[in-house]
Amino acid sequence: MATAIGTTYTHTEPVAADLIRFGVIGYGYWGPNIVRNLGSLPGACVAALCDRSQQALRRASQAHPGLNLISDSAQLISSPLIQAIAVVTPVWTHYELAKAALENGKHVFVEKPFTSTVDQAEELIELADKRNLKIMVDHTFLFTGAVRKIRQLIDDGTLGGLYYYDSTRVNLGLFQHDINVIWDLAPHDLSIMDFLIDARPEAISATGQKHLNGHEDVAFITVYFPGRLIAHINVNWLSPVKVRTTLIGGEKKMLVWNDLDTDEKLKVYDKGVNICTKQDVYELLVSYRSGDMWAPQVEQVEALKIELQSFLDCITYNKSIINGGLAGLQVVRMLEAASSSVARMGEVVYL
Amino acid sequence: MATAIGTTYTHTEPVAADLIRFGVIGYGYWGPNIVRNLGSLPGACVAALCDRSQQALRRASQAHPGLNLISDSAQLISSPLIQAIAVVTPVWTHYELAKAALENGKHVFVEKPFTSTVDQAEELIELADKRNLKIMVDHTFLFTGAVRKIRQLIDDGTLGGLYYYDSTRVNLGLFQHDINVIWDLAPHDLSIMDFLIDARPEAISATGQKHLNGHEDVAFITVYFPGRLIAHINVNWLSPVKVRTTLIGGEKKMLVWNDLDTDEKLKVYDKGVNICTKQDVYELLVSYRSGDMWAPQVEQVEALKIELQSFLDCITYNKSIINGGLAGLQVVRMLEAASSSVARMGEVVYL
Amino acid sequence: MATAIGTTYTHTEPVAADLIRFGVIGYGYWGPNIVRNLGSLPGACVAALCDRSQQALRRASQAHPGLNLISDSAQLISSPLIQAIAVVTPVWTHYELAKAALENGKHVFVEKPFTSTVDQAEELIELADKRNLKIMVDHTFLFTGAVRKIRQLIDDGTLGGLYYYDSTRVNLGLFQHDINVIWDLAPHDLSIMDFLIDARPEAISATGQKHLNGHEDVAFITVYFPGRLIAHINVNWLSPVKVRTTLIGGEKKMLVWNDLDTDEKLKVYDKGVNICTKQDVYELLVSYRSGDMWAPQVEQVEALKIELQSFLDCITYNKSIINGGLAGLQVVRMLEAASSSVARMGEVVYL
Amino acid sequence: MATAIGTTYTHTEPVAADLIRFGVIGYGYWGPNIVRNLGSLPGACVAALCDRSQQALRRASQAHPGLNLISDSAQLISSPLIQAIAVVTPVWTHYELAKAALENGKHVFVEKPFTSTVDQAEELIELADKRNLKIMVDHTFLFTGAVRKIRQLIDDGTLGGLYYYDSTRVNLGLFQHDINVIWDLAPHDLSIMDFLIDARPEAISATGQKHLNGHEDVAFITVYFPGRLIAHINVNWLSPVKVRTTLIGGEKKMLVWNDLDTDEKLKVYDKGVNICTKQDVYELLVSYRSGDMWAPQVEQVEALKIELQSFLDCITYNKSIINGGLAGLQVVRMLEAASSSVARMGEVVYL
Repeated sequence: MATAIGTTYTHTEPVAADLIRFGVIGYGYWGPNIVRNLGSLPGACVAALCDRSQQALRRASQAHPGLNLISDSAQLISSPLIQAIAVVTPVWTHYELAKAALENGKHVFVEKPFTSTVDQAEELIELADKRNLKIMVDHTFLFTGAVRKIRQLIDDGTLGGLYYYDSTRVNLGLFQHDINVIWDLAPHDLSIMDFLIDARPEAISATGQKHLNGHEDVAFITVYFPGRLIAHINVNWLSPVKVRTTLIGGEKKMLVWNDLDTDEKLKVYDKGVNICTKQDVYELLVSYRSGDMWAPQVEQVEALKIELQSFLDCITYNKSIINGGLAGLQVVRMLEAASSSVARMGEVVYL
Repeated sequence: MATAIGTTYTHTEPVAADLIRFGVIGYGYWGPNIVRNLGSLPGACVAALCDRSQQALRRASQAHPGLNLISDSAQLISSPLIQAIAVVTPVWTHYELAKAALENGKHVFVEKPFTSTVDQAEELIELADKRNLKIMVDHTFLFTGAVRKIRQLIDDGTLGGLYYYDSTRVNLGLFQHDINVIWDLAPHDLSIMDFLIDARPEAISATGQKHLNGHEDVAFITVYFPGRLIAHINVNWLSPVKVRTTLIGGEKKMLVWNDLDTDEKLKVYDKGVNICTKQDVYELLVSYRSGDMWAPQVEQVEALKIELQSFLDCITYNKSIINGGLAGLQVVRMLEAASSSVARMGEVVYL
Repeated sequence: MATAIGTTYTHTEPVAADLIRFGVIGYGYWGPNIVRNLGSLPGACVAALCDRSQQALRRASQAHPGLNLISDSAQLISSPLIQAIAVVTPVWTHYELAKAALENGKHVFVEKPFTSTVDQAEELIELADKRNLKIMVDHTFLFTGAVRKIRQLIDDGTLGGLYYYDSTRVNLGLFQHDINVIWDLAPHDLSIMDFLIDARPEAISATGQKHLNGHEDVAFITVYFPGRLIAHINVNWLSPVKVRTTLIGGEKKMLVWNDLDTDEKLKVYDKGVNICTKQDVYELLVSYRSGDMWAPQVEQVEALKIELQSFLDCITYNKSIINGGLAGLQVVRMLEAASSSVARMGEVVYL
Repeated sequence: MATAIGTTYTHTEPVAADLIRFGVIGYGYWGPNIVRNLGSLPGACVAALCDRSQQALRRASQAHPGLNLISDSAQLISSPLIQAIAVVTPVWTHYELAKAALENGKHVFVEKPFTSTVDQAEELIELADKRNLKIMVDHTFLFTGAVRKIRQLIDDGTLGGLYYYDSTRVNLGLFQHDINVIWDLAPHDLSIMDFLIDARPEAISATGQKHLNGHEDVAFITVYFPGRLIAHINVNWLSPVKVRTTLIGGEKKMLVWNDLDTDEKLKVYDKGVNICTKQDVYELLVSYRSGDMWAPQVEQVEALKIELQSFLDCITYNKSIINGGLAGLQVVRMLEAASSSVARMGEVVYL
């Protein structure tokens, strides 16, 4: 029939010598985005997709006719036709899969959080170093226009020295069975915070509660930095409303990032307080500053696409990577500390 | 390589006897949504896609490998392998394409607005009637959860008799070259209004102004209904902010529909005024009522998919159709009247 | 008892020679604000308050113990102890009261709208001119931080040439018995518009409907200016939500004024469209510009206080006045035209 | 002059036998509201106002001509003409002033927080009990329409068993010199929480940081209740935006209270999760419920007026009082615990 009323284009673009062939493991919630974006990058292709679920493979086949499908991850990982593995599976499987991939000489792109323990993360980093392979942990937010703009406002001194970083990430969440709300939601905030703030966190105190299935579904994390900088993260799977708001207070300016606001994600306020000379305990010690608000334009891009392109560049040109194994390790270290503190009702855990 | 590391699923579902084969004409802004949704419906398939632009066909080929592509619409329309034509092209081409399709015995799904003139619309309706073919005009909003919910609240008497319908649809718009902002944006409001309100509009007064390319880019339309119901539509291509808000005032309750609000699109207010017995010109003639607000849950669906399924049902089971040729004609009649009134600075045009 | 446990301050500040003594007529919704603000200005005092309602006088007495109260306005107007009359009564009484005041040699501060007809306004202006007396019409909004900031942004060229002015002023309103929603709410918008826009309006088209008590409670006004500038005002007494939003589109920048936003009343958008060279009817004729948004700090002041001070200055130093009789007349002229157009279903009325 | 053009009303209402005469100490930020509201209640009067600042007394005199003013609080407290003392001064003075008042046989209305220490609070309660005098701590929020409505929704079982209480109270705050942000802002949240939640809190963990003047200006408080209920309070004097939002999660329904929303302060969501039978660790253990949202009308009242009337009733009819000394003590206990925990970086403090 087709020939009767039209023609189809044949894609016969020659495969470039430096095309990086990916094996993708996992086609659940996030896997489809990885497959779609890898497919759209000129320097990459998805050589095969692996999932244990036949239903998942069927969905993949419908969305991407012609995609090679496989259910045995070991077979995928050992294939000589593949240069990199994307691990898009639950966190408790990351270590085994990433380790096997590295041992088979593959670069690894791994979903956040990097691993279930600090030890696992350290072992993977060491393994990759030995083999001269790359690890990228999928801290997607670092590649959004909003986070890059905030980073710029901090780096160029617009905000001045930071006072606090206060993030709220709550909604009626998808309950996870193997991890608590800290391991599910806080990796976003911790990776962003770690990227934005130059200093290294010193200690963590966290509180929370389990209501439904044995894991904390509500948690509050305080991160202490050297000096007077403090961070706080509020994560909650039981909120009727979705909130994605971060306040950053600086000496010179203060910033509100509302990630749910389509048009004005970032608002920079020319507001603050100045310490005055102390005269009398009952005199006002501080004066207030109030001025304009400014919402800088934020680049609208698909962060995951930029991130994956950055992974390709890192492999091809041996470039350093902002969200490599060490960044992933740092997040896991804080997650471990937070979970440990929650269990002891807020007792401080030094990092 | 593929066979070495996996397999691909082969889609060998037998073609059902009652599968309706579509020829789609136009792959610009909206065409991709038509192709994707037709592809996802069990009772339909896209037999071929036609566009004059090679670039558009290339995009289609990337998104839908294997899709039959064609650049001559006449060839598509005359193909005996096709039962229905989707016309997803600029409005000034609708009449010719739809007419040819009907003359070739095809059902027609046509983008809004239906045609450029009332005469064209009437001719197409007559032609379809003679040939016993179906026309559906793509008034997608009628199939959204929000509009269906509002219709229900009007039909079941929740709002009471209607006082006014006031809609604002403004943003920094894509300038059209062949039509003004009324023909571009108001078909949404007029089709929704026509669907929700039982009465037939009697007259239209419209005002507006041309600032940039010879077509009105700002316009204000008043629609008079029998009795005291009045409607107003504010459309603007030059607004720095996007607004999609409709207020509906009823005797019993009042409603605000903010289509940009993800979670609370509809708000129903138990507010209003009651006329009291007139005693004295200086006494209060009305009393106020204020109560709870209620945001009914609105079904989250892809309206276009439901609309296309409804078109299939209409063809297969010869069912009547809420957005058929007559609904399209009614919208074109109002667009013509509004444009005519704008040219005479608001002078009323009777329908 | 008082003397047993404390003392009271006695106000014996000498009355300044140039203190202007006001007689205030009307203590309904707005009168209390006039009395309170006149009392707080160093250059003014309320010599007496007049209202026909004993209940109103009792309220005044509670709020301002010692205030002279009177029920006969003629007595107040003729008192030689008074230099200025504030007319804070329904619009249909303005002309008679203001006329009597001017004939008795008093300056007049009169509530908006100035008068019920153009003829009345013209007569009062002439009378004041002859007697060398001042008239101020209470267009309070002109003295708000927001309007003064917008004026500045227009005057300094920030917005560029204006395309449109589009205001929405709706809520569940206090029904008036003597006037429609246009005369009640639109004076705000018309006076602001007239203050902000340098050009003189040429024509008006308005539509609306009466639902409850014989006066329009919903109305839409279009104002045509020379060139391509157009204004639109949406006023409604039957809205479940309160909206006070004005969009101003300029060639260079666009502005949104949301008067209900406590902190960010004004937002200036670096957005717009540029006309490109026309090449082909199907080529894009315009290009889009999108940039930062900026919310300038708006001075938080009580506008009425500044306005009344301005009236005092105008009297004392014989200064010109932005909201004098001519400004009031211009608004009344537009109100008359709008009401006349509404009655003829939008037919244009030239000014 | 006055007699020439009018008359003044004379207030000669006889003083009722049961009129309660107040001495008010403190006319800073909040004192004017106390004086104004006491003046408006039929059963109370302000016999005298005391403040050490002559400037404050002058302000009071302008607003309330004839008010008895005094600068020595001891004289006020010992006056036999006074039955009750309102202490509207900084927290570190509460204990001394309230103690003297009770010792002089006066009832005491005291600003929040009740006292600086638990010991002081306990001593005052004991003293009042002995003397059969009443103490009310000014937890004004308990008398707002919003809090009373929430209480009703909890009491009648609408929300079901509570999961969490999460409040954010941040803004660019008035820096206090004698107390930190916890003692300044958290009394609101703690008193509301204590009023709404039937259970008694068991332990507190708090974190925070000092940036400017030696007191914490940012703090995060977690309150543990018996069972699985947890509360969290985020207070911050260094926020560029004002936030007053409380989320309350219940088994049946969830609630958001945004105190800055004029019209829709409370939103009740028919959303939640249900625990299902556990089948497999990888099966979904919970199911989601999503439904309508409902914004109940909240009574618009001046909470302080209702609170003071309640104090009068409590004195006159010897009624019990929801915000008496014990409620004040409970808040002080939590403030002490929170400050203590902050100093030890989140270490839990049992109550």
